[in-house]
Amino acid sequence: MASSLEPLLRPKSVAVVGASRSRARVGGEIFSNLLRRPFAGSVYPVNATAGEVQGVRAYADIAALPEAVDLAIVAVPAAGVARVLEQCAAARTKAVVVVSEGFGESGPSGQRLQHQLLDAARAGSLRIVGPNCLGVVNTDPEVALHAAFATDWPAVGNVSVASQSGALGIALLDGSRDVGIGIRHFVSLGNEGDVSAEDLLEYWENDPGTQVVLLYLEEIAHPQRFLEIARRVTRRKPVVAIKSGRTISGARAAGSHTGAIATKDVLVDALLAQAGVVRVATLEELFDAAALLTTRQGLVGRRVAIVTNAGGPGILTADACEARGLVVPPFEPGTVQALEARTSITGAGNPLDLHAGTSAETFDAAIGVALGDPGVDAVIVECVPTPSTDVLDVAKVIAATRRYAAKPIVACLLGKRDVAAGRAILAKAGVPCYALPESAASALRAAAQYADAFRSSEADEARPRRSETPVTRPPKLADGGDRWLDAAETADLLHAFGIHGLQSVCVPDAQAAVQAAEMVGWPVALKIVSRAVVHKSDVGGVLLGLSNPVAIREGVATLRRRMAAAGHGAELEGILVQPMAPRGVEMFLGATRDPAFGVAVAFGTGGVQFELWHDVTLRLGRLSHRDAFAMIEAIRGRRLLDGFRGAPAGDRAALADAIVQVSRLMEAAPDVVELDLNPLLALEPGRGAVVIDARVRVRGTGSVSAGASGG
Amino acid sequence: MASSLEPLLRPKSVAVVGASRSRARVGGEIFSNLLRRPFAGSVYPVNATAGEVQGVRAYADIAALPEAVDLAIVAVPAAGVARVLEQCAAARTKAVVVVSEGFGESGPSGQRLQHQLLDAARAGSLRIVGPNCLGVVNTDPEVALHAAFATDWPAVGNVSVASQSGALGIALLDGSRDVGIGIRHFVSLGNEGDVSAEDLLEYWENDPGTQVVLLYLEEIAHPQRFLEIARRVTRRKPVVAIKSGRTISGARAAGSHTGAIATKDVLVDALLAQAGVVRVATLEELFDAAALLTTRQGLVGRRVAIVTNAGGPGILTADACEARGLVVPPFEPGTVQALEARTSITGAGNPLDLHAGTSAETFDAAIGVALGDPGVDAVIVECVPTPSTDVLDVAKVIAATRRYAAKPIVACLLGKRDVAAGRAILAKAGVPCYALPESAASALRAAAQYADAFRSSEADEARPRRSETPVTRPPKLADGGDRWLDAAETADLLHAFGIHGLQSVCVPDAQAAVQAAEMVGWPVALKIVSRAVVHKSDVGGVLLGLSNPVAIREGVATLRRRMAAAGHGAELEGILVQPMAPRGVEMFLGATRDPAFGVAVAFGTGGVQFELWHDVTLRLGRLSHRDAFAMIEAIRGRRLLDGFRGAPAGDRAALADAIVQVSRLMEAAPDVVELDLNPLLALEPGRGAVVIDARVRVRGTGSVSAGASGG
Repeated sequence: MASSLEPLLRPKSVAVVGASRSRARVGGEIFSNLLRRPFAGSVYPVNATAGEVQGVRAYADIAALPEAVDLAIVAVPAAGVARVLEQCAAARTKAVVVVSEGFGESGPSGQRLQHQLLDAARAGSLRIVGPNCLGVVNTDPEVALHAAFATDWPAVGNVSVASQSGALGIALLDGSRDVGIGIRHFVSLGNEGDVSAEDLLEYWENDPGTQVVLLYLEEIAHPQRFLEIARRVTRRKPVVAIKSGRTISGARAAGSHTGAIATKDVLVDALLAQAGVVRVATLEELFDAAALLTTRQGLVGRRVAIVTNAGGPGILTADACEARGLVVPPFEPGTVQALEARTSITGAGNPLDLHAGTSAETFDAAIGVALGDPGVDAVIVECVPTPSTDVLDVAKVIAATRRYAAKPIVACLLGKRDVAAGRAILAKAGVPCYALPESAASALRAAAQYADAFRSSEADEARPRRSETPVTRPPKLADGGDRWLDAAETADLLHAFGIHGLQSVCVPDAQAAVQAAEMVGWPVALKIVSRAVVHKSDVGGVLLGLSNPVAIREGVATLRRRMAAAGHGAELEGILVQPMAPRGVEMFLGATRDPAFGVAVAFGTGGVQFELWHDVTLRLGRLSHRDAFAMIEAIRGRRLLDGFRGAPAGDRAALADAIVQVSRLMEAAPDVVELDLNPLLALEPGRGAVVIDARVRVRGTGSVSAGASGG
Repeated sequence: MASSLEPLLRPKSVAVVGASRSRARVGGEIFSNLLRRPFAGSVYPVNATAGEVQGVRAYADIAALPEAVDLAIVAVPAAGVARVLEQCAAARTKAVVVVSEGFGESGPSGQRLQHQLLDAARAGSLRIVGPNCLGVVNTDPEVALHAAFATDWPAVGNVSVASQSGALGIALLDGSRDVGIGIRHFVSLGNEGDVSAEDLLEYWENDPGTQVVLLYLEEIAHPQRFLEIARRVTRRKPVVAIKSGRTISGARAAGSHTGAIATKDVLVDALLAQAGVVRVATLEELFDAAALLTTRQGLVGRRVAIVTNAGGPGILTADACEARGLVVPPFEPGTVQALEARTSITGAGNPLDLHAGTSAETFDAAIGVALGDPGVDAVIVECVPTPSTDVLDVAKVIAATRRYAAKPIVACLLGKRDVAAGRAILAKAGVPCYALPESAASALRAAAQYADAFRSSEADEARPRRSETPVTRPPKLADGGDRWLDAAETADLLHAFGIHGLQSVCVPDAQAAVQAAEMVGWPVALKIVSRAVVHKSDVGGVLLGLSNPVAIREGVATLRRRMAAAGHGAELEGILVQPMAPRGVEMFLGATRDPAFGVAVAFGTGGVQFELWHDVTLRLGRLSHRDAFAMIEAIRGRRLLDGFRGAPAGDRAALADAIVQVSRLMEAAPDVVELDLNPLLALEPGRGAVVIDARVRVRGTGSVSAGASGG
């Protein structure tokens, strides 16, 4: 079945409602753009009063058109748009782009207008782009649709772009021309009332003319759908995205007044990483990446050779590569010999400095040898014009090499002389050409990230379909509204999923504590039990290593005194007696349930170190053991698990089990909205992991429904 | 007294030795450049064979010239340069620029030639730039000296540039033109045989036409001299530097085959920070910073207001600011009211989105109000062309505001329409204008860093001169060549500087250990003593909390077994018995002595956390208490000292004392080349700090001299 976006991006006929005689008005500019770049079908101006618009016979309304059009561009004042949509529906229009502003972006009355507009569209089965957008462009010669304002016809190519901001859309199209990126489709999403970034991703997945997708996003309205679709798309073509509003003030600007969105940026990061989308922070990084990816040079690894005729830029390039997680390895001995034989350089290193006096022929030889090194995944060729080095000749050499090279090549031409001509030759040959060393490095990093994501999704494909694990039934929890579970409930819940803590007994007084200690074994730890205190250590509510009855009696008194001092004297519900924790590595394992993103599981270095270092990694959705082991390796504190500085090593397998089981728990127990195991103690390999402290927050069943869809 | 660089940068007459008829040759190009941009004095071509060069009467050698010239540019083959310098000296030439290549950069024979050249220069009291450089440029209209090749005459301005790489020098000059930065002096340093970056800094310090200094450095040959001079210069004008070779492969490219230079990058970082030099990583950041600093808008704080007519770019700018350590604070209530009254925006936030329909007048009002907010230090005005917003008019408004604004303003113009014209207006008005949000943010960060350094050097000036502390005499150390001090020597040395450890007794066997435990108090820790083991915990050489004679006897046996297992059975020199450490915060305090950089003191989060998190800060030279407290506040682990998560707080004053005393120790004991106190335990405030483990490495007195100059 053809996509419902087909009439939007490949219409056979277009009407511009609000087409104006004046090109200074939006409706006039779009109509003029459609005419100037001859659209492959018919274009009709619709104007209530004018008999002709820009030399073309105009129609009073959409009903008066001689045919049912595929696409209508609507550029009339906001108040009249819903009425136009009704007319479009009646006239069997299939898709509409609403460029008019004054909707959701401009307060409550605009929001009402937007609701009306979407109701009208739904009633008429119309797909809508916008409102409050710049329009759409399709450079496919069979279509040649320039239904947008404020931007010129872009260079034609294989990169499709969607933007939730008009201004950034313009910047993207303008910038793409400057850096030599060709555009296929451009969609300005505006308020994203109907057609969304996810819809476009799905469309572009099957569009053979689209080889790279670029997104500018301010909001991901349906994260779980985005993840599902983007994961599929990135198996076929790279997607590079800016998701703005990363920081508190950025998020405030994006519409959040509490900064809550910014705290969700870690979820966005996890989402995009799991989807295989390469996230970049700046327009420049977006262009850098696109310029390489559009040349389709295959998957890129992280080991880079740098061939240059100038020492300084070579050093800067090496710095820029390493700062971005790439590697600039020394050449293999055979490569060094071959380079010395063919370039008369002694001690050929990487970066390979051919010196200012080098010729294009020497460049040619050196690039070939460097490409042949088995330890090299990609080559950056850097050239500065000198009396002996003709940049144009070097560009020709690179272009010729590109024809047979099995590994990616990128060029970096510094200086001014002949650079424009060299750039043109490289563009034609499909070699990205940068003006700055850090751009080349940033592009290779993005490409390597994409390659990693692609390979890991291939591995996912290859692995046998997960046989449905029988779902563990969590114990029934008493409904008490939004609350923290007590110690016994927490232990029962975790126990059901195979996660165990230290044996512990909750007692009311010192005498019972002494008896409990006899039972669990000396020495013991005492901990306060109180719903009023979230972090026990904040009030000094933990005492360790008590080894006799006297110490216990003193300890209980101390805890009572501290609770009183903290103003919680009346809220001490009991004292927990536990055996002293065995030696182990303190880790953190937690989970949250977000209404939009679903379940996120976090793993990191734990104990008091958790809050100080924020050494934590996060994944969304149901987790496999493969995911769990990847999470363990993703944190810096993994070294602690190797037996750091003579301490015992930690049981990775047990940690991976715990991660998977927490993910299952969150799936099976939709009332649980937050869960922290900290510390989760990794014992020596083979001996398991044990929870030292746990907190679980649940929503009352009355309010669970929203959360139940997550996971 | 006039600087010895005066004849180099303000010569009254210039000879080009090796001036060629062909402009394709270096000597020909430089001569042609000097003629084309009419130099204010006389220019003489020196050519052994030609009677005239490019229409000017030529001379066979420098002795034949009709006058003694201030400056000679030498562009003859390397082998002939030393002879030319002798002739120059004989003819009373004052300064020479050697552009010829084939010296230090090209192997041993070139190095010999470079030595000959420098000997000849010294013998004749000649100042030399190069060899292997592009030449020098001075755009001062009174001089108009274009004595360089491979680059055009730059735009005239107040920015002076020195580069240790010719290619980067070209990129800097070419790029500066593109981003609208005007150049005053340009010096290509080449192999830096004589005239160095430090010499130029000193010259530019007193050059009123130089307002900003840009440096591209691959090596800082004399770090302590650089620090002293740069610290002085940055009190008067900003210095922005790229120092490349940051990473292992970058350093390898810069000539280090061991990566040792890269490990010194932390020293370079400390050096530049203490000198008040703004270090940037890329050419682009260098240009971003220079474009703002060249407009001399005064010192810049970190609180930024963003005024924009486009939401997306506003969000990206806020993200870019916060990612760079700037703050985008909400406006004060009075500002919000004034904005709402004057712009008809409701809920005026920062970033302030004036929407696409805004006019230049509204921009004008909004910029004025934002500048007036007492919580705002600088304003970024961002404008995208729209049907209602004329970028040209907005540029005029910004330019007019700049005339009276007491706070810095930077502009960011996105899109294409009218942007070039707007840019020109802003350039004339002294407002930096960027094409990307992150460039504006990166410039403000650099300016804020400079302002911080400037203010902190002002505070240094204001503080009363340090009364010379009576130098503590370190105890005499036995000369044993390069070695680690033993426990007693270490304790004595630290003790002399008021740094104390736990009482500890070194014993040969279990029985003596039990006696020692009775003396220092139960429970105790046992630690191996062995010069063969640098990190005790690596071999399990530390046992804690032994509380009775049986445990001690077992413990000693365990330590012997572990030493044997690690292959050091014969090297166990004794067992250290210490009381168990009191509770405290584990910090790290260390010092090293580098032959070039002198003494560096490092402070950070200690214990086993040191190696995992690398949370450490570093300062060079003699440290004051002010420095020490700044170091304590510079690390992330400072939160531990506040009493993190219910743990006791740590004694900052005692840590600061220890930092200062370690700095004094390194000054007074030049034999000490390396010192680690880890952990240094910060007890509760008022109770001091105590060393738990210390290592001190000394060089034998025979080899101390090189280090003794440090500190």
